[in-house]
Amino acid sequence: MSMSSKSSQFLRKFASKETKRSISMTCSLASERQFSLNGVFPPLPTPFDQNENVDFDALRKNLSLWEKIPFKGYMVGGSNSELPFVSPAERLSIVKEARKVISDDKLLIGGSTCESTKATCELSEAMAKEGADGVLVLLPFYFKSRMNEAAILDHYTTVADKSPVPVVIYNMPIVTGIDIPISVLTKLSSHPNILGVKDGDVVKLAGIKLATEGQKFEILAGSAGYLLPGILAGCVGGINGLAVVFGEAVCQLHQLAMSRQYEKAIELQMKLIQPDLMLMREYGVPGLKAAMDILGYYGGPPRKPLQPIKEADHGRIRECLIKSGFFKL
Amino acid sequence: MSMSSKSSQFLRKFASKETKRSISMTCSLASERQFSLNGVFPPLPTPFDQNENVDFDALRKNLSLWEKIPFKGYMVGGSNSELPFVSPAERLSIVKEARKVISDDKLLIGGSTCESTKATCELSEAMAKEGADGVLVLLPFYFKSRMNEAAILDHYTTVADKSPVPVVIYNMPIVTGIDIPISVLTKLSSHPNILGVKDGDVVKLAGIKLATEGQKFEILAGSAGYLLPGILAGCVGGINGLAVVFGEAVCQLHQLAMSRQYEKAIELQMKLIQPDLMLMREYGVPGLKAAMDILGYYGGPPRKPLQPIKEADHGRIRECLIKSGFFKL
Amino acid sequence: MSMSSKSSQFLRKFASKETKRSISMTCSLASERQFSLNGVFPPLPTPFDQNENVDFDALRKNLSLWEKIPFKGYMVGGSNSELPFVSPAERLSIVKEARKVISDDKLLIGGSTCESTKATCELSEAMAKEGADGVLVLLPFYFKSRMNEAAILDHYTTVADKSPVPVVIYNMPIVTGIDIPISVLTKLSSHPNILGVKDGDVVKLAGIKLATEGQKFEILAGSAGYLLPGILAGCVGGINGLAVVFGEAVCQLHQLAMSRQYEKAIELQMKLIQPDLMLMREYGVPGLKAAMDILGYYGGPPRKPLQPIKEADHGRIRECLIKSGFFKL
Amino acid sequence: MSMSSKSSQFLRKFASKETKRSISMTCSLASERQFSLNGVFPPLPTPFDQNENVDFDALRKNLSLWEKIPFKGYMVGGSNSELPFVSPAERLSIVKEARKVISDDKLLIGGSTCESTKATCELSEAMAKEGADGVLVLLPFYFKSRMNEAAILDHYTTVADKSPVPVVIYNMPIVTGIDIPISVLTKLSSHPNILGVKDGDVVKLAGIKLATEGQKFEILAGSAGYLLPGILAGCVGGINGLAVVFGEAVCQLHQLAMSRQYEKAIELQMKLIQPDLMLMREYGVPGLKAAMDILGYYGGPPRKPLQPIKEADHGRIRECLIKSGFFKL
Repeated sequence: MSMSSKSSQFLRKFASKETKRSISMTCSLASERQFSLNGVFPPLPTPFDQNENVDFDALRKNLSLWEKIPFKGYMVGGSNSELPFVSPAERLSIVKEARKVISDDKLLIGGSTCESTKATCELSEAMAKEGADGVLVLLPFYFKSRMNEAAILDHYTTVADKSPVPVVIYNMPIVTGIDIPISVLTKLSSHPNILGVKDGDVVKLAGIKLATEGQKFEILAGSAGYLLPGILAGCVGGINGLAVVFGEAVCQLHQLAMSRQYEKAIELQMKLIQPDLMLMREYGVPGLKAAMDILGYYGGPPRKPLQPIKEADHGRIRECLIKSGFFKL
Repeated sequence: MSMSSKSSQFLRKFASKETKRSISMTCSLASERQFSLNGVFPPLPTPFDQNENVDFDALRKNLSLWEKIPFKGYMVGGSNSELPFVSPAERLSIVKEARKVISDDKLLIGGSTCESTKATCELSEAMAKEGADGVLVLLPFYFKSRMNEAAILDHYTTVADKSPVPVVIYNMPIVTGIDIPISVLTKLSSHPNILGVKDGDVVKLAGIKLATEGQKFEILAGSAGYLLPGILAGCVGGINGLAVVFGEAVCQLHQLAMSRQYEKAIELQMKLIQPDLMLMREYGVPGLKAAMDILGYYGGPPRKPLQPIKEADHGRIRECLIKSGFFKL
Repeated sequence: MSMSSKSSQFLRKFASKETKRSISMTCSLASERQFSLNGVFPPLPTPFDQNENVDFDALRKNLSLWEKIPFKGYMVGGSNSELPFVSPAERLSIVKEARKVISDDKLLIGGSTCESTKATCELSEAMAKEGADGVLVLLPFYFKSRMNEAAILDHYTTVADKSPVPVVIYNMPIVTGIDIPISVLTKLSSHPNILGVKDGDVVKLAGIKLATEGQKFEILAGSAGYLLPGILAGCVGGINGLAVVFGEAVCQLHQLAMSRQYEKAIELQMKLIQPDLMLMREYGVPGLKAAMDILGYYGGPPRKPLQPIKEADHGRIRECLIKSGFFKL
Repeated sequence: MSMSSKSSQFLRKFASKETKRSISMTCSLASERQFSLNGVFPPLPTPFDQNENVDFDALRKNLSLWEKIPFKGYMVGGSNSELPFVSPAERLSIVKEARKVISDDKLLIGGSTCESTKATCELSEAMAKEGADGVLVLLPFYFKSRMNEAAILDHYTTVADKSPVPVVIYNMPIVTGIDIPISVLTKLSSHPNILGVKDGDVVKLAGIKLATEGQKFEILAGSAGYLLPGILAGCVGGINGLAVVFGEAVCQLHQLAMSRQYEKAIELQMKLIQPDLMLMREYGVPGLKAAMDILGYYGGPPRKPLQPIKEADHGRIRECLIKSGFFKL
């Protein structure tokens, strides 16, 4: 089991990298999980070169740009990372590489999602060894009709029992076809190594908050498009695709909302709506990568069968970025 | 065609009922549609007696209670009214009866939804004659796979052309299986007799707001559970099932949000979450009717095949109402 | 309650129309339901004139053509009749009109589907009075999430209790979003006034057959595209949209399959596939109406929001009809 | 590229294993693909020991039992193999192991499905090296909304271009949420290295048959529950879960149907319905594994989060097997 997060962060800052990790894996209790997810986590796209191999140079370059932004940490291995296209081994390498580059006070959440409980446990353990502070786990959904409450509880409980670092539940019905109910999340919230949930529907977010009152259970908004309403409903932060390209603005929105500067927060939230709708809903990962290319990050091609953005659509994306008012291009 | 809404309201206040209506139907232009939906509209459940007939006495009794609440108006003939179970003729009678009882400054929105365009037009005209100030129209969805953009535009444009009173689009993908896209709503927003839309997803609400900027097109939040986020996103009001039993609180939330008293609004919004989840999502219409019975309204049975709430669930609902803090029971 | 079907048919043949009906409504027992659905029932499209009113002349003309085909009977008021667009009163008039025109030995099944149990009962009774021999009832589905087993059983049992003529269950998950399970159909099969089910999935059809062995419960295939496999699985007949324009061929297929002439049946079944895919799946009702126009029936326009077939698609349909080999055009 | 299948089968019979493989990988043309899928392929469950590791002894034991049945070949790495839970490396080992055990005249189809095109190509190549005669490829579906026709064509064409052995398309909308249309399958059918499709809806099966007439493109029925109707519609065989435990019966049904002994085929088909509904639809893989345990195969536990069958359900499965009349237990 991992050490407490607080201890873990302390060590990271003041000990050598090697020492820190070896200590962290042996001396602490997952159940302490004393770090908080209160901030913005960009879900990092996986950079591929023209042969569709992971491009670690591009990853380092991108991270060096992101490091200038006051993110709470990073999420690697979720949908925006093209999770289903990136093998467990590749995801692990990305965790390892990212951990080397980012500063010690940034949290690193690894997407250890696999369809089987066994593989999810193994990848969670491996990611923890490579420096992940937590893991984000999507519900298995291939055998949708069998994922009843018992199966859901069994999966998350087993992963949380085995994972050396805290588990964040990743609920995403648009992908899985299953919306984990508040009642099930509430049961899972009492597990000492389940730290929180990333979810999406603002009424449900508030419902989770009320139902888990008193538990140490943190809620993350799954999109920048509803980060403000999410925070009003009790979220402490977000895993927001838009933060990949609008990092400063999303962090500022988080800060404004947390510090109750609502007028300014509302205004900023509205500015993020069009880019969120276009990049995250209309074009998805290929669109986000196109925006990265436009803005000086390495975006590059998605892995097939995802198709890259057509030439004509690049223009629309460029225009949307300019209109947002955050960039001069 | 109806007269403008402003004129219509004026007349209602100062002329006899007969005069008002006859004038209203002949001298005005729908396209002026000068009233606003800026407020709370409870979607009224249809009261049935023990033989499942519409109980007009109960309707009058309920309306007399609702009239004490500062609603902007009332919605009859939507999902909460058991729309599919209430025939066009019954819906029309309810509009007529409600118009007699409610004060002249309250707007009355009739649910004129039918599957065919023709029947929707006819019911819209009839409802206007009986005193509806506007009509709310759900997308036909029986032949889902044929409801392409052309069919959607044709339906709403035809109804709006024919309806003497403004049309509000009712988007409800959970029922219809079709989410009318922002781009289609934007096209419809330019129709002079389409006044607005009731929709649900907070990011989409904001997106509609931005896309229809400059149009007279008003957006309503479809649930009290996200009334505050909805208003932050640009909604002027809401059609909120919970307002049927928590009318004062929902109106207060609306007023707080519109007057930018965010701290208080957030607190009040959170108090409405649990009842909203329980009554609107978990139990639906039968649960809302049970709550009405508990709170001194006439709720009564739903029409079959909707099944009434079980005895054991009455206790849960009662407890939820008490916990809300709005009622002493 | 109606008299037994056998008596009913007897009377129809040998008594005056008025006498027959008055007798039929008073002296018999629904539970006898001695007729069989063993044959082909075309689900009749509702003819509309250019103003979208029901065109009874066209209906009579079409029926006079269909009467030359050895159908077992007719179905009016189902999906192919644009059920959601045709009011209960209109459906009733169509039943009445059809009964006048068709010969006494043809069964007439009325689609009495309404969303409420109450309205379905009323329309079933009215249709029986106007000469329907049975009613076909689709599951209510507006409030999908509330249609649990209790609600399904309650709906069909209540309708069957009240209907003077036998009830045929109409399962159509592509419209309703709910697939009535075999276990529920099996429970319903024991009701004396539930005669059978129209369903679609060939494995399920066989499963229903096995599960209701010993019950008088008949199964109809819902499409000509799988009429042969349906009969192999235990169906006695079908309600087949394609029979509207390919009546002779569908009846012949039924006859070949029932008389175990499998080689010929297979060959004929294959000839019906392309037209079935094109008319029933690709174009739906507007396509079927276009085919009717091409073949000398009155097709006419669908009611809006259904859009008529585009000019270019008429050519494809014409070509498909010619290729089928059943017509010279 | 692999050698032609015919050559491949020849070599397998007459050369040493090592020689055969090395030759097969170098001297042949995928486009010749001269073998046929005309027969029954059981989709083999993956045996796990109590620690959820692949149990190769159990695999060998099971294969030795299956080898007594006149299967055309075997499918490993599909849904019944718990595809999403078995890593590419594990799937490869299973192909290798199976190839060692089974006789040379049995075809081995490897499920090389991965979400990315790249990984699917790699696994297809690797499986071919280990002795797979063909690969079965399910449509990627994580990013459902992006899987338009271009993406589908790109995926299958790329895999077929790269795979040394023929590709069979695996259409399974219940898992993927996407039904590959006949028009798209028809385009893919012209690829020289795409051998066929496994699909499910009997009308569609017939439609594919008609649309690909003249192409060398074979169609497999995806379930024993509709093997007869599938063959009537033009299927040459099937990948049928039930064949795992009812192998003799399913092969006999195939043989009866192919040799046009329809009376006997219908009778046998009906006997397979209840077990198919129970094992494949109601209980799924855990039920199939339970049946294997009962019948003397090694079934064992599924991988989590799939939950094993409850004790009470074992009794129902046992009873169903006995009732089938194929086994004395």
